[in-house]
Amino acid sequence: MISVDDKELHTSAEIFDAFIERSWRSNAERQKAKGAEFVIGKREGVYMWDIEGKRRLIDCGTGGGVHALGHRHPEILAALRQALDDGRDTGLWSVPNAKYLELQDKLAALAPKAHLNRSVITLCSTLSVDLATMFAFRVTKRQKMLAYRHGYHGHTGFAAIVTGSPEEGIIDHYNLPSHSNFLERFGDIEELDRLLTSEIAAFIIEPMDYETFEAASNDFFTQASRLCKERGVLFIVDETRAGLGRSGTLWASEQYDIDPDMMITGKGLSGGLYPASAVLMRAEIYEQCMNQHRFAYISSLGGNEISCVVAAKVLDVASSPALLENVRKVGAYLHNAFQALCSKHSDVLRSVTSFGLAVSVQVANRDVGRELYREILADGVLCHSVAEIDPPGLKFFPPLVLTELEADNIVNALDRAASLLRKSMKPAA
Amino acid sequence: MISVDDKELHTSAEIFDAFIERSWRSNAERQKAKGAEFVIGKREGVYMWDIEGKRRLIDCGTGGGVHALGHRHPEILAALRQALDDGRDTGLWSVPNAKYLELQDKLAALAPKAHLNRSVITLCSTLSVDLATMFAFRVTKRQKMLAYRHGYHGHTGFAAIVTGSPEEGIIDHYNLPSHSNFLERFGDIEELDRLLTSEIAAFIIEPMDYETFEAASNDFFTQASRLCKERGVLFIVDETRAGLGRSGTLWASEQYDIDPDMMITGKGLSGGLYPASAVLMRAEIYEQCMNQHRFAYISSLGGNEISCVVAAKVLDVASSPALLENVRKVGAYLHNAFQALCSKHSDVLRSVTSFGLAVSVQVANRDVGRELYREILADGVLCHSVAEIDPPGLKFFPPLVLTELEADNIVNALDRAASLLRKSMKPAA
Repeated sequence: MISVDDKELHTSAEIFDAFIERSWRSNAERQKAKGAEFVIGKREGVYMWDIEGKRRLIDCGTGGGVHALGHRHPEILAALRQALDDGRDTGLWSVPNAKYLELQDKLAALAPKAHLNRSVITLCSTLSVDLATMFAFRVTKRQKMLAYRHGYHGHTGFAAIVTGSPEEGIIDHYNLPSHSNFLERFGDIEELDRLLTSEIAAFIIEPMDYETFEAASNDFFTQASRLCKERGVLFIVDETRAGLGRSGTLWASEQYDIDPDMMITGKGLSGGLYPASAVLMRAEIYEQCMNQHRFAYISSLGGNEISCVVAAKVLDVASSPALLENVRKVGAYLHNAFQALCSKHSDVLRSVTSFGLAVSVQVANRDVGRELYREILADGVLCHSVAEIDPPGLKFFPPLVLTELEADNIVNALDRAASLLRKSMKPAA
Repeated sequence: MISVDDKELHTSAEIFDAFIERSWRSNAERQKAKGAEFVIGKREGVYMWDIEGKRRLIDCGTGGGVHALGHRHPEILAALRQALDDGRDTGLWSVPNAKYLELQDKLAALAPKAHLNRSVITLCSTLSVDLATMFAFRVTKRQKMLAYRHGYHGHTGFAAIVTGSPEEGIIDHYNLPSHSNFLERFGDIEELDRLLTSEIAAFIIEPMDYETFEAASNDFFTQASRLCKERGVLFIVDETRAGLGRSGTLWASEQYDIDPDMMITGKGLSGGLYPASAVLMRAEIYEQCMNQHRFAYISSLGGNEISCVVAAKVLDVASSPALLENVRKVGAYLHNAFQALCSKHSDVLRSVTSFGLAVSVQVANRDVGRELYREILADGVLCHSVAEIDPPGLKFFPPLVLTELEADNIVNALDRAASLLRKSMKPAA
């Protein structure tokens, strides 16, 4: 029987207390305040259980896509175990290994644009963004980045510097040197036009506004790509969250007439089991960066054999036509079902935006958002978050293997929560 | 039977050819030029075999300590497998987990100085250096680092910026913004005194000069620590390579009368199986950085449960008195045996420097160094590298589980290589 034994050692409440006493207090308190005082025990597919085995949750957060293929996908878990059984370890960074090459070849074969046929494998998307930034600095001989204000690209080094979100960004918190400008409005080509100056090395952006789960329009992305090219600015698409099937195609970039210079994938590439990420790029960029310095990128653990075996299996699973069809089908199903709830509970639920299986329900206000989050969590659905924008959005970012039956459970939970909330509001009226 | 199956797919030469054709060409060519055109197949303890099964090598490089406990240490491998069998995956970064806390508690209990009782767990030492730099920027309200020129701290973000080595550094290659000054001479307290200005946020240094494997003197480290404190500069000891038993004590820092503000461990913390690293720090720094911003450090995969289980087991193994005793004993044994070879082959081998099981043999010149490297490699010993300093050093950084018998094999290989080289030199004289 599969079981996580932490419950023998601690209760969820004890673990939270210990975190508050001597670890990351602010995060534990934030979770507690949201009504999410649980520690994850068993997990499988779309489900997670708390260590007490009392709560079963549908994971509609998936850590922003880390568990995009569901928790402990059997094929990916088997690939990891096989890598260990085959006698592998992390090897030596300086010694070429066949699994690195096989992963590079697979990424090239699956790339959204044929010219993105070279890649560097790293441990996580933060490191990939970091590396892409460094590559852009070299190729353009410039030292400034442009990013969308409300995007998220990571929390250390140059990745932190292109994460300007007022909520998640940490540039001011850590007194970081300023090497970025920010586009304030997603999709605003005029603003972009003004900001794409000759000091910008690269424009990095996700293919969807993660605040609202609205896809970039083809018009915006096409023009952005063209403007970048005209100005000698590299166009970097960060598919850490939108990629690997989330949008209904393997890469969101497939849906646009764009000409990106680099593309980043991560989070889900780990299969939620073993860290992996990659930067795909044009051969010219790879050549100029990786092959003109004999120690162009040393990483003790990035691109190690075990990691490459796992990531290659993730690509196999994520690129399967059946999975992508499921994303499109269940994504539309969820969108429409939420839309119906908006008609039914129009005083608390407003509208729905989505991109594949990233679905957001706009709600009346923040208090309503927080109340619904808490209520559906108590009912067994962990949603991604409540976007702190106007109107606030209740965000769902479930595993891509979600079935319509499981989607029904999510919809029913929101239906019940909205009904409850409306009842509780009426007496006050 | 344990076997890596890449040999069924490719030969070492084919894999090298493919790397040269479409992957990291410059590295593959560098390896080839060194006579190291092999791909790693089976590996176990101090040994690695090529995929053809023809060459068996004693790994005296260990990727700078990634395999400090030997390849696929049975207890660490078992811990990783157990984590998978227990039903774990990488979990969610926002949800506290008991294994993270247990690792933090273990690090606090084993810390070289009692006040380093808080830690952040990351995926790799590059990310740890990055984070430590950011923490220093916040705590001091400054934005410049000081590092030893020939140290190595990583290759992305702020870690890249404090890696100023003319050989391995990539600051100029990637046109990175300048946020560091460099100490040119390891141990020079007067130079340090001049460089520790009021703009410096932190001084980051390894406890040994990695070029020569000479330990920092207590005098230098003590004064450096004191000067930092006087000037409001944080003192960060990077034990990524010197820590986890390498020096004969669990942490090299134990051997100094210093008062570090942060300490970094990595590489070997992965057990060569699953990425892990950590930044240890004072509680005040942790509090000010991690608990005054609700998203102070988001990492999807850093500090995940599986990683923490593996790292905790590494700490158990590395801190065992028997292992540390072995490092001191075999380190001294190797040092003395190499010293004897220097007397025997004084025209090619000059002197020995060491710190625990990091041992360097200074040789007559670079050509001699390269020839010896190649010769002992052909004889079954992969040494770490030839330091490109004057005099050049043939560097050995073997697994800490090395026995005297295995050390004899290394010594005999160098003995034979030196004899051969001297014979080949004589006819030319």
